[in-house]
Amino acid sequence: MGLISYRSKYVNNPIEEQDKLAYKLIKSGKKVIKLNRGDPAVYFKTPKYTVDAYVKALREGHTGYSMAIGVPELKEAVALRYKRMYGLNAGPDNVLITQGLSEALVMINSTLINEGDKAILFRPYYTVYVPYMKLFGGNPIFEKYDESNNWNVDTESLERSLKREGKSKRVKYMLLTNPNNPTGTVLSRNILEEIVDLANEYGILLISDEIYDELVFNKAKFTSICEIAKGIPYVILNGASKNFDATGFRLGFVVIPNDDKISETIMEKMENFAVTRLSSNTPAEYAMVETLTNQKDHKKALKTLVGGIEKRVNFAAKLINESEYMHTVVPRGAFYIFPRVNFDNLKIKDDKKLTDLLLTEELVQITRGSGFGDGNHVRLVSLAPEEILEDAINKINKFYNRHSK
Amino acid sequence: MGLISYRSKYVNNPIEEQDKLAYKLIKSGKKVIKLNRGDPAVYFKTPKYTVDAYVKALREGHTGYSMAIGVPELKEAVALRYKRMYGLNAGPDNVLITQGLSEALVMINSTLINEGDKAILFRPYYTVYVPYMKLFGGNPIFEKYDESNNWNVDTESLERSLKREGKSKRVKYMLLTNPNNPTGTVLSRNILEEIVDLANEYGILLISDEIYDELVFNKAKFTSICEIAKGIPYVILNGASKNFDATGFRLGFVVIPNDDKISETIMEKMENFAVTRLSSNTPAEYAMVETLTNQKDHKKALKTLVGGIEKRVNFAAKLINESEYMHTVVPRGAFYIFPRVNFDNLKIKDDKKLTDLLLTEELVQITRGSGFGDGNHVRLVSLAPEEILEDAINKINKFYNRHSK
Repeated sequence: MGLISYRSKYVNNPIEEQDKLAYKLIKSGKKVIKLNRGDPAVYFKTPKYTVDAYVKALREGHTGYSMAIGVPELKEAVALRYKRMYGLNAGPDNVLITQGLSEALVMINSTLINEGDKAILFRPYYTVYVPYMKLFGGNPIFEKYDESNNWNVDTESLERSLKREGKSKRVKYMLLTNPNNPTGTVLSRNILEEIVDLANEYGILLISDEIYDELVFNKAKFTSICEIAKGIPYVILNGASKNFDATGFRLGFVVIPNDDKISETIMEKMENFAVTRLSSNTPAEYAMVETLTNQKDHKKALKTLVGGIEKRVNFAAKLINESEYMHTVVPRGAFYIFPRVNFDNLKIKDDKKLTDLLLTEELVQITRGSGFGDGNHVRLVSLAPEEILEDAINKINKFYNRHSK
Repeated sequence: MGLISYRSKYVNNPIEEQDKLAYKLIKSGKKVIKLNRGDPAVYFKTPKYTVDAYVKALREGHTGYSMAIGVPELKEAVALRYKRMYGLNAGPDNVLITQGLSEALVMINSTLINEGDKAILFRPYYTVYVPYMKLFGGNPIFEKYDESNNWNVDTESLERSLKREGKSKRVKYMLLTNPNNPTGTVLSRNILEEIVDLANEYGILLISDEIYDELVFNKAKFTSICEIAKGIPYVILNGASKNFDATGFRLGFVVIPNDDKISETIMEKMENFAVTRLSSNTPAEYAMVETLTNQKDHKKALKTLVGGIEKRVNFAAKLINESEYMHTVVPRGAFYIFPRVNFDNLKIKDDKKLTDLLLTEELVQITRGSGFGDGNHVRLVSLAPEEILEDAINKINKFYNRHSK
């Protein structure tokens, strides 16, 4: 098939690779427990005040294109959020609105990556970091979140890697995820400071994906990169989907706080990309202005959401750690669990086979760890009520027992 | 600036390159006449039944992710629209929902274009066809819409070009726009048949951007490529923005009707791209299910819209053709006017200078023709009421007089 591009084989997302099959099963009357996609809106309704604001925007006629780079009021509201939460001194011009964080990643890679360039990812990584780099011919350098150290960044290994590769002009950025998807880690301030120092020393652009920055629990303390990375160019990714429980709105926020030449040029080029597609979803942008501004209702909604997530994640993690086939570090942020699977005790050869069989045999849909760069694990979304999580984990254990050596 | 990718210099959209300046002028109290962006929703409100359906979707809780490839009911509704309008025998699996047609173009180019590949565009082209090809290292082969023949395709020139380049496996597709943006041409069935024959003979994938397929007037008869291209693989692009007056929803429809191996593989790879970004805007998708299904209300809204466009386009075209500095072929589809500018009589050196000066001196924002690959023209969006169009064209004429030789 000479018609299809080489890159097409990398462009995919394991989180949804079973969705067509799952949809068929559901259409045929089967009850599938879907723990594959991180969508809080399934079990925690998008807050009413947000939906009301969306309806109001529609009724007021905000149905045409907005400014491509984002509704000015929304950019202002995002800047103010960062001022309020982290003391960041940024204005609306430091903010770009995208169609979800995924589009932001496409734009960043398009802006930075030439064929053959590299960028540093930490493994396990969010699934699409790799395909979006490969879109433009980039190749990841994999550093690691260390499971034996609560999935923290191994900064010594990072430093060795930077010594080897960091002075090359072809290493374009280093991308952190904090709080982490899939591990649920919240990086400590100390670790972040070490990373910032290394980025500074080797002149590597730091990108911090902080889309779960308010979904933090089990006494974790979140530190934004913007509280530390004062002197160097850096990029923060955030959005409506997770903290604001509005996944279906498709709105991402890119914040590039500094006004140095590098920061400004990156913002300019990303804005140029944004104008090629004319607009994000306009009424959703207006809904998010209200959502970001109305702190009282947001705090209330967030309390319910984070409280619910903490209970459910802890419940599921406990059950998982009682299984003889799985073990997980207890998450402190986001809403995923990423247990190690004891394949030595199973007749199943790998995580792909495991998740495929699990869906067809037990009607439970989870995501293979290899999609995140680590095939010894699987990812479960822990947003469902306890009884559903319990049912799913019981089924997984039953499944393991049936396939044990 | 070694950090920025080479491709970044191509990624832009002349339609909005003046938007930041225009926004500043407006914020400072100036009244700018914006004729740069093709947004029917500014002057023709998005139909109430569509907005009602959007609100209903929100109230019913459709705020989370949808299936990445599109809400099944919407894919079904799009397939039925093609059945109803063109007798096309396609099902929901032949349809993909994207975040606007621009995202569809990114996906198509990612799926087909390797570094150094080519594709045939017809000049003047819609602005972002080129940057989206360049994202992936592709290079356009320019064929032409012939102004001296009412902007029809010059099929003889196309055939010569195909003889030269068409047998190369590196020519990946040929992209038509019908009805045309920026010229407003509606291609005749005869011309389309010749093009389909050539595509067939040279084995070139045909892509037809038909996003204005219901916005046809001045007695033009629109023919969809799906009425002709029976035996060969082809792709149709459409969406919510123009026919349905819902630009701010950001929904595109990709239709790949055939079930041959090539068609199926292209659809599969585009779907794989779609899952990387998880979902389009969900409540908007549900709004479009109702909009596509409720034919009575759609016909009513369309009659108002097309009737209004026809009057305004004809009004503006007449005024333009009375100017000694401009001449236009009268459009029969879409809502743009693309007049030739008589630069010989002006002291202004090119279309970029012209549009920049026009904005600052007369507060009229239009788009330079070079953005469409033809610097002897400019593009005006003719959606505003007559008095605004008249005011704008008077100001343009005054501007020309001031800058005449």
